[in-house]
Amino acid sequence: MNVHTLGYHYVVEASGCDPEVLKDVGALKRILLKAAKVGEMDVRSTYFYRFSPHGVSGMVVVSGSHISIHTWPEHGYAAIDVYTCDVSSKPERAVEHILKEIKASYAHVTEIERGVMDEDGTYTHVILSWDEEPLESGEDRAAKAQH
Amino acid sequence: MNVHTLGYHYVVEASGCDPEVLKDVGALKRILLKAAKVGEMDVRSTYFYRFSPHGVSGMVVVSGSHISIHTWPEHGYAAIDVYTCDVSSKPERAVEHILKEIKASYAHVTEIERGVMDEDGTYTHVILSWDEEPLESGEDRAAKAQH
Repeated sequence: MNVHTLGYHYVVEASGCDPEVLKDVGALKRILLKAAKVGEMDVRSTYFYRFSPHGVSGMVVVSGSHISIHTWPEHGYAAIDVYTCDVSSKPERAVEHILKEIKASYAHVTEIERGVMDEDGTYTHVILSWDEEPLESGEDRAAKAQH
Repeated sequence: MNVHTLGYHYVVEASGCDPEVLKDVGALKRILLKAAKVGEMDVRSTYFYRFSPHGVSGMVVVSGSHISIHTWPEHGYAAIDVYTCDVSSKPERAVEHILKEIKASYAHVTEIERGVMDEDGTYTHVILSWDEEPLESGEDRAAKAQH
């Protein structure tokens, strides 16, 4: 982490997720808590609730930042944020864990480097976006290549 | 809001803020709750705490989304997120309220349109960034113009 950067924030749109997982409050809570653990983040507080008709919002407040998920099971879609201000955390591992557990087939990811000091002393952020196909493991690709 | 857009998320880096406000847990809680109100968002839960040495993290969970702030009083800096999935909300008003109350002199803002359906049926997001000088009111500009 750059000495002038105060945090890393991953903004993720996950598609093709398992609707059963996306509507399961208990499962999502376990997934986000485990994500905080694999991302080496200290959990301070959690809040999960179901919103109408069957989506779920989940927040895990970690030291100096947060992990959140908002789900639309009817679209197989989840909006995920993993934001950390702790230089020793591994937010990218938390993102990977969540995508795997909700069985996302595709993810659009934007990494926002937050609190980056500009030349004039004000703070800005730096943005980098990419696409992922989390479920396409090496074996999947090998299987596809044979067809 | 586009029919294929599932949320709007404002990611804000605020500079030149009042350090006394940034270290005041009670003031920040009042500011974020009022921001939810002016942004026409229904509050579900709040969580605020001071982190070492004197920054504050605050989360307000609103219906289907959230408002958060993480502050570094020693840098006059705050990282703000206002995210709403409710089409009737006014997240930009919430952002303006927070910037005014923490007395930010400068803000770098990125609006992320979330859950935007792509041509292939997957979800992506659309990003737009700009800079603001929230404290520079019309009177300030008039006063400057005279010098």
